[in-house]
Amino acid sequence: MRIDIITVLPELLRSPFEASIMKRAIDKGLVEVHFHNLRDYTTNRQKSVDDYQFGGGAGMVMMIQPIDDCIAKLKSEREYDEVIYMTPDGETLNQGMANKMSSLENIIILCGHYKGVDQRVRDHFITKEISIGDYVLSGGELGALVLSDALIRLIPGVLSDETSALTDSFQDNLLSPPIYTRPSEYKGWKVPDILLSGHFAKIDQWREEKAFEHTKNRRPDLLDR
Amino acid sequence: MRIDIITVLPELLRSPFEASIMKRAIDKGLVEVHFHNLRDYTTNRQKSVDDYQFGGGAGMVMMIQPIDDCIAKLKSEREYDEVIYMTPDGETLNQGMANKMSSLENIIILCGHYKGVDQRVRDHFITKEISIGDYVLSGGELGALVLSDALIRLIPGVLSDETSALTDSFQDNLLSPPIYTRPSEYKGWKVPDILLSGHFAKIDQWREEKAFEHTKNRRPDLLDR
Repeated sequence: MRIDIITVLPELLRSPFEASIMKRAIDKGLVEVHFHNLRDYTTNRQKSVDDYQFGGGAGMVMMIQPIDDCIAKLKSEREYDEVIYMTPDGETLNQGMANKMSSLENIIILCGHYKGVDQRVRDHFITKEISIGDYVLSGGELGALVLSDALIRLIPGVLSDETSALTDSFQDNLLSPPIYTRPSEYKGWKVPDILLSGHFAKIDQWREEKAFEHTKNRRPDLLDR
Repeated sequence: MRIDIITVLPELLRSPFEASIMKRAIDKGLVEVHFHNLRDYTTNRQKSVDDYQFGGGAGMVMMIQPIDDCIAKLKSEREYDEVIYMTPDGETLNQGMANKMSSLENIIILCGHYKGVDQRVRDHFITKEISIGDYVLSGGELGALVLSDALIRLIPGVLSDETSALTDSFQDNLLSPPIYTRPSEYKGWKVPDILLSGHFAKIDQWREEKAFEHTKNRRPDLLDR
C-alpha cells in the first residue's frame, strides 16, 4: 500500500510513523508513506494556503488551488483508489471499513486544517470523506494517523502474529474478554482460576462467555449488527 | 490542565505535541503534558513491560507492576481527576464528553499496547475507559493524542478565535455548512451567490438551512439527540 498524505503540518506526522507497527511496516517494505506539504504548491507570493471565509465568520478556509495542484501532480504519477478527506462530517470509520480499505493499493489522504477546505475541493476532487469519531480536532492530521494505523496493521505480514488481529475487539462484533499475565497474584488480586487450569476448551468457553457478557454490558448495539 | 501520559512508546507521541494547537497551548502555559516511559518503572532484570497471556492465546499483555508503580508515583505528587485507559471497548469519545472533560485539572492517560493491559489494572486503578471509535489501533498512543487534542483546543485561550470552536460540527448537534474562500470562481466552479451578497442575515439563514440539510442527509441520528 502507498499512502500520500497532504497536509500543512508534515512535521506533526513524523514521530508516529517512526515508531511501532507503522515503522515496522515501512521498514519491511509493506507500506510506503509520503507527506506532501501544501505550502510547496502555493502560487501566491505569501505562500499562504488559507484565506477568509466568503460570507464572513470565524476561522480560515483552505484554498482550492494548492490542493488541486498537489492532487493533480500525484495523479499524474499513478492511479489512486481513493482520494480521502478527513472531516468530522465524513463517514464514521469502523473496523469493517478498515478491513475493506486495507486491501487498497494507493490512497491520498487530505488533512483539513483551520475551519476546513473550500467546498469545491470536496465536490470535485474527493472520493471518500472519513471521520474518526464525533468530536472536533484541530486538524485532519491525527485522523490521517489513526486511519493509516488502522489500515496498516491489517496488511498481511505487518503484525508478527496474525491471529492477534483476528481476535481483536470488533472483528466478530464482540469486545475482547479480560486478559491477565504474571504474576498470578498481585497485592492480593488473583487471576481467575480457570485461566491457570490448563483446560483449554474450558478457557475458550469462559472467554466467549466473558466477551459476550462484556459486550452486552458495554456495547449492546454491537450484538445487533 | 496537566496531562500525564503513560506509555511504552513516548517517542511516538513527540511530534504532534510539537506542532499546531497543542504546541501553542503548551507554549502559552495553558496546558502541561508529560510522558512517562513504563520501562522506567520495571523492576525485573529484562526491563520487560509485557508477558504472555494466562490461558494461552496470541498477543502479549502489559504487566500490572510497572503501571501500578508509575500511577502511584504520580498520585503521590498531586491529585488526579481521572485515570484514563484508552481502549476500543471504553466509552466512545464524543464532543459532549470532550466539553465536560476540558475543565479537568489533572488527568493520567494510560496507553495500552500489544494485546492490552492486565485486567487487574483496569479493575483497580482506572477511573474512566475511553475509546476514540469502533476500530482497532496498534496502541493507545494515537487515542491519547486524539483525546489530548480534543480537550486542549477547548481550553479557554487556546484557540485564537474562540467563536471558531463554538461553530464547529457537533457543538449544536449539526454538521457544519459548506465553506468557501477566494477565488470566487475556479476552473468554472463558482461560490454560491448568496455568500458574495453581503446580506449577512440571509447568509446566516442559508448556512443554517445547509447545516440542517447536510446533517439530515449524512447523520440523521444527530438530529434525534
